[in-house]
Amino acid sequence: MSILVVGSVALDSVETPFGRAEEVLGGSGTYFSTAASFFADVKLVAVVGEDFPEEHTGFLKSRGIDLAGLQVAPGRTFRWRGHYGFDLNEAHTLETQLNVFEAFRPQLPPGYADTPYVFLGNIDPELQLEVLLQVIRPRLVACDTMNFWIDGKREALLKTLRYVDLLAINEGEARQLAGEANLVKAARRIMAMGPRIVVIKRGEYGVLMFTEHAVFAVPAFPLEDVFDPTGAGDTFAGGLMGHLAANDNLEESAVRQAVVFGSVMASFTVEQFSLERLKELSYEEIQDRYLKFRLLTEFGPAAD
Amino acid sequence: MSILVVGSVALDSVETPFGRAEEVLGGSGTYFSTAASFFADVKLVAVVGEDFPEEHTGFLKSRGIDLAGLQVAPGRTFRWRGHYGFDLNEAHTLETQLNVFEAFRPQLPPGYADTPYVFLGNIDPELQLEVLLQVIRPRLVACDTMNFWIDGKREALLKTLRYVDLLAINEGEARQLAGEANLVKAARRIMAMGPRIVVIKRGEYGVLMFTEHAVFAVPAFPLEDVFDPTGAGDTFAGGLMGHLAANDNLEESAVRQAVVFGSVMASFTVEQFSLERLKELSYEEIQDRYLKFRLLTEFGPAAD
Repeated sequence: MSILVVGSVALDSVETPFGRAEEVLGGSGTYFSTAASFFADVKLVAVVGEDFPEEHTGFLKSRGIDLAGLQVAPGRTFRWRGHYGFDLNEAHTLETQLNVFEAFRPQLPPGYADTPYVFLGNIDPELQLEVLLQVIRPRLVACDTMNFWIDGKREALLKTLRYVDLLAINEGEARQLAGEANLVKAARRIMAMGPRIVVIKRGEYGVLMFTEHAVFAVPAFPLEDVFDPTGAGDTFAGGLMGHLAANDNLEESAVRQAVVFGSVMASFTVEQFSLERLKELSYEEIQDRYLKFRLLTEFGPAAD
Repeated sequence: MSILVVGSVALDSVETPFGRAEEVLGGSGTYFSTAASFFADVKLVAVVGEDFPEEHTGFLKSRGIDLAGLQVAPGRTFRWRGHYGFDLNEAHTLETQLNVFEAFRPQLPPGYADTPYVFLGNIDPELQLEVLLQVIRPRLVACDTMNFWIDGKREALLKTLRYVDLLAINEGEARQLAGEANLVKAARRIMAMGPRIVVIKRGEYGVLMFTEHAVFAVPAFPLEDVFDPTGAGDTFAGGLMGHLAANDNLEESAVRQAVVFGSVMASFTVEQFSLERLKELSYEEIQDRYLKFRLLTEFGPAAD
């Protein structure tokens, strides 16, 4: 099954305690599509400026990503500049230049409307809703959002969430959206807004997934070298959706596996700047790290 | 197999967003012994003042804890006063009255010296070493410590650690002890100081355990009502050591199970103030929550 994703394609400038990168490939749509492309066919709906390097378009194409929905608009590509301290869980934004993203209206090319798996990346919830109006009965709709929209466009976000099956959201943002400090209660409140699967991203502490009758926890992979956490959340969502779409199975056990594949993909992304690690990644490495996640978390049943 | 524990027995006054408790039973030795007593025989070495309520001594006895090493000294019992905000991971100490604890020197009663499992609670590392000098070839020595000793008694602590098999320590303190922000590297450095098992406690995010060839991660149990996190770490250590001593098996798989039993015990402690939840806890509830931890964390192997 194929996946439609709407999100940002950006040029990022990032500084971490371990180095810096200037104007490298970034954006939620980019990380998501690249991660998902290891598992399933991906259609990317986004916008870049006329200055967007051909090399990056070439890379996305090389991953088999369908770029018919990637608009090239007059002007400059969206740019983000940020830095991380030793607490790699928190990005500090230094500068955001929306540029061509400011006037972006997602337009689905012919043939995109019946894509069964839809991911609404972290953009204005009004635009997320516009995408939903252009697709025909998708099998699964997943969504990301952030504090900026929870605060500033709450009504629009709540409207979008009514049509969302799976919300993948940061821990602090889950609390903010629900108005509740306790995560278990916060997840229940969010489920009452629409999503029947709430995936809470906790950075280096991993992920909690709430479904109607169960909770699933998976740790982040303990890494000796975390170079740049940018894009980890979007890569996670890409691996998750990619694996779901590839198997087209929405049972609890299949969603759990997909959450682990998402965690696997995120664990690779942070090992290098930008998408460098994903560029050289093989499917064998993904399978191998999935097995390592099993070894990391398994313990036996209690004796009677 | 039986366990010897040296630690504090205290009267705690605690305020959380959900309520307050005045002069209730607390202390690292208390939480540890109570948790461990569900699994194994426990000998408690500690000190209380003449004001220590008989009711509390009665409770510890009712748990089958051997109190021959519990000194009653002239003066008042150790007291701690603290509060927690909505971030229940962090205790804010308002007042510490050492009282009889100030002059405490651990004295092992006759028959204690050959206890096979030894837990050195979070006290002055010089006193921890005094305990080690009084025991004969224990099978396993575990230890806790804190920022106060890492800063103020580093040399004594490093000396103690040489004789320790298992260090159970908070995340921030692990980084401080190792002088290293990355936890994987920090754990390796701590292992070079002596312990061959490093258990890193991360509060509501669970536990990471490092052994020579493996890493094990277990989440904290997602709870709807966390009432009071006081004693969670000591209860965790008590469940861990209790289960290890009961099975007398130090293989990786057995230690992993013990870490989960520790997490089970901690998840109960935080549900009420002081030791209230442990007082009414049954072994069936422990077994049941262990099973829930399995359901919380399990996911299948990847398809080929």
